[in-house]
Amino acid sequence: MSNSENEDEHIHPEATLGFEYAENSTEPDVGSGATIRTGTIIYNDVRIGDGFITGHNALVREYTEIGDDVVVGTNTVIDGRSDIGSSVSMQTNVYVPSNTAIGDNVFLGPNAVLTNDPYPVRKDVTLVGPTVKNGVSIGANATVLPGVTIGEDAFVAAGATVTKDVPSKTLAVGTPAEHEELPESLQGENEI
Amino acid sequence: MSNSENEDEHIHPEATLGFEYAENSTEPDVGSGATIRTGTIIYNDVRIGDGFITGHNALVREYTEIGDDVVVGTNTVIDGRSDIGSSVSMQTNVYVPSNTAIGDNVFLGPNAVLTNDPYPVRKDVTLVGPTVKNGVSIGANATVLPGVTIGEDAFVAAGATVTKDVPSKTLAVGTPAEHEELPESLQGENEI
Amino acid sequence: MSNSENEDEHIHPEATLGFEYAENSTEPDVGSGATIRTGTIIYNDVRIGDGFITGHNALVREYTEIGDDVVVGTNTVIDGRSDIGSSVSMQTNVYVPSNTAIGDNVFLGPNAVLTNDPYPVRKDVTLVGPTVKNGVSIGANATVLPGVTIGEDAFVAAGATVTKDVPSKTLAVGTPAEHEELPESLQGENEI
Repeated sequence: MSNSENEDEHIHPEATLGFEYAENSTEPDVGSGATIRTGTIIYNDVRIGDGFITGHNALVREYTEIGDDVVVGTNTVIDGRSDIGSSVSMQTNVYVPSNTAIGDNVFLGPNAVLTNDPYPVRKDVTLVGPTVKNGVSIGANATVLPGVTIGEDAFVAAGATVTKDVPSKTLAVGTPAEHEELPESLQGENEI
Repeated sequence: MSNSENEDEHIHPEATLGFEYAENSTEPDVGSGATIRTGTIIYNDVRIGDGFITGHNALVREYTEIGDDVVVGTNTVIDGRSDIGSSVSMQTNVYVPSNTAIGDNVFLGPNAVLTNDPYPVRKDVTLVGPTVKNGVSIGANATVLPGVTIGEDAFVAAGATVTKDVPSKTLAVGTPAEHEELPESLQGENEI
Repeated sequence: MSNSENEDEHIHPEATLGFEYAENSTEPDVGSGATIRTGTIIYNDVRIGDGFITGHNALVREYTEIGDDVVVGTNTVIDGRSDIGSSVSMQTNVYVPSNTAIGDNVFLGPNAVLTNDPYPVRKDVTLVGPTVKNGVSIGANATVLPGVTIGEDAFVAAGATVTKDVPSKTLAVGTPAEHEELPESLQGENEI
């Protein structure tokens, strides 16, 4: 629970910074200027950069690494052992499974769901979440299948189900998602 | 925290009625007969009518106006600055973004997601959520894109992704949603 | 709150085991070896077998019966009056409405949504959720319509919307879901 004396921090008394999920676990390391709201739980063995902000009732589990200036929305769950870059914005009700890689300047819309089990409980495979490259935006209520890579600056439409890799600067739309050129209105870079 | 002496109210001790999100914010004004369950957080600067009921861990943020006899389900998030009518039923895990307009006698099924950013973090636009007219039902896990108007007594099917305005008394179904005549079984008015 | 003296139990002090939703309700009966994490609420009049595990902020409402070795993920809501078998794994953000029947060895992926109202608030019908037979897997963010039966060992793809009965050992995919033979990679039985 580093920096607890930092004046810039706003750790709400009903938030849990350092959930001791196992006996020899280590308190999380959170940079300066964090705002962690009521009901949010950060596990031990988590490292987070500066300027971290959460909504309410968010959950960040063990062995997750998070960069600077990241927002984790209300009810969003990061299930552990994931790497998340800087300037990432996760809206409300987002689900990030374990072993997911998310780059910088990434946006995850409300209720977006990433997954890590290609054959749920039917095969004993290594669980690997998606790789979401820098500058990607994933729309509301989209679903991304395990192990898929979403290329730089690509855009996943709201409600899409992404079953295969998405090339960079491409729009993925539909269930299962098909790939289209980015419309002019979605070209450019994310500014988070 | 008006009416706290009202005998008809059931504000669970572990609910938060009046989250002080900013220094000069004002306690919420909640009408008579409210039931607010454990874990639910109502921000300051919220006005709610009579007969308000919530599940657990719901969130209602600032500058939201809610009419009478409204139910907000467990884990449902209303992100602020929205206008919600009377006799509205939001089920579990619903997401309502800021600047959304919802009429009277509206039903939002579990995990329904409304959105307000047409070009997430790619363009600096005004965020405007959907306009949901009187008597609309939105099915489970449906997604409604920003600025869309759903006409009176229209019905959005479960799992649909609504990308354009839906005429009144029309069924929107699929991803992206197409419009069909309401089947006989869905005609008539909502009774909430 | 049976077995509270059981050494194998890990009921987190901020979990609620026995929410008294009504005056004459009875404390829940939970078998040995339970782990119930912070923020989770188990209502009165619930019966649960041995080896029960929950994430955070899960909710199990009244008159639900749950077998042995069941996992209920973070934020998952079971709305009451449902029967759930043994060796069932519900991931994060799952929604199970009242009057749902779930067999043994069933997997529900993150954000999967079951429903029980075929004509939401338009007709006064009996609410009946899906029947999910033994060995079924339901993918992430899938939606299952009311009253549907999903046959033994069937598989619902991520993002699918299931509108009609799914035969056993069949893959349901798309919105609305169509039925295909199970690919070889998804054949076999669930091991939970």
